[in-house]
Amino acid sequence: MGNKLVLFAFVLLISVAAYNQSSSGGGSTPEYNDKGQLKLPEQYREWTYLSTGLDMSYTPGGNMDHHMFDNVFVNPESYKKFKETGTWADKTMLVLEVRGAESQASINRRGNFQSGEVMGIEVHVKDEGKFPGKWAFFGFDNGNLGNLFPAGAACYSCHEGHGAVDTTFVQFYPTLLPLAKNKGTLSPAYLKENGEEKKQTP
Amino acid sequence: MGNKLVLFAFVLLISVAAYNQSSSGGGSTPEYNDKGQLKLPEQYREWTYLSTGLDMSYTPGGNMDHHMFDNVFVNPESYKKFKETGTWADKTMLVLEVRGAESQASINRRGNFQSGEVMGIEVHVKDEGKFPGKWAFFGFDNGNLGNLFPAGAACYSCHEGHGAVDTTFVQFYPTLLPLAKNKGTLSPAYLKENGEEKKQTP
Repeated sequence: MGNKLVLFAFVLLISVAAYNQSSSGGGSTPEYNDKGQLKLPEQYREWTYLSTGLDMSYTPGGNMDHHMFDNVFVNPESYKKFKETGTWADKTMLVLEVRGAESQASINRRGNFQSGEVMGIEVHVKDEGKFPGKWAFFGFDNGNLGNLFPAGAACYSCHEGHGAVDTTFVQFYPTLLPLAKNKGTLSPAYLKENGEEKKQTP
Repeated sequence: MGNKLVLFAFVLLISVAAYNQSSSGGGSTPEYNDKGQLKLPEQYREWTYLSTGLDMSYTPGGNMDHHMFDNVFVNPESYKKFKETGTWADKTMLVLEVRGAESQASINRRGNFQSGEVMGIEVHVKDEGKFPGKWAFFGFDNGNLGNLFPAGAACYSCHEGHGAVDTTFVQFYPTLLPLAKNKGTLSPAYLKENGEEKKQTP
């Protein structure tokens, strides 16, 4: 009788653990194939949402002939650690999803909403043991395997030079920026750029 | 020995269940005070993200002098049930968060990103035993208690007349619309409005 109860309890435990895994999005650790390509974390839409921009660009440039939204998600474990520490743990994955913008459909008469068309996905991965600069970018042009952006690509130098926290653009994630300020984890480059060297709490 | 193991396993079980509850955002069931006000589900930013619009409006109207983003989140349990059934379970809460839009800050030169300013929150609640129309809207003007929109408010008739699924605007949630199409849960009103009466799968 005692043994049966133990068995029952452990089966239940394993079931709850499995449910817990699936409910947090699953696949929250970066996985690569033997060519070094990153596997798309397919449940990223169930990860923690950080923010959305419209038509964001780092150059003044001309007008685009269409609008685009970009949504950013992070794996829930790393989000929880950010709330505790104000910075990113090893194995963090930030997913940037670019979506088309529609208007004048259904009852909408002004403004834009997001279309079903995913126009691109990029993943920014922190994997300290794997990448010399700790972080790497992968682009998913099509399919579920992402190609590494080479170390000379502009994204690396731009993120290093301007990212508010640990080479990431926390300045555009409205719920994270105050956490980073409180924890004193804003980067020297960002503080200098915003004239806030002495405003950080600690 | 057997009893100790049983005890240990059950304590572990309860711990995992408690963690599971907290990791899914907690407070996922609507709670009201004795004045009938809805308590803000404070962890809604950790719920499942549905979509974002910019300056969406159902009337042509004039131009606004500022931009606004609206983000929509749903409690994770109801999201999971929607994936299975294509519609909303009892106790569903959809949170609409309106945020200011900024531009020309940090390295951004074009487009808009979301500011730290939350300009408003509305919650659409399904509580079949409580509301004659099954659903109700609550507005959070300030603080953590939401006031019920009266039954004659335009939001009710508009959602009933145009919502793609069960009085909700699933037509603006790009990952849910295909699920609803596949499950055959699109509303007759929406199908008629889009000339798609016969296109639904089942």
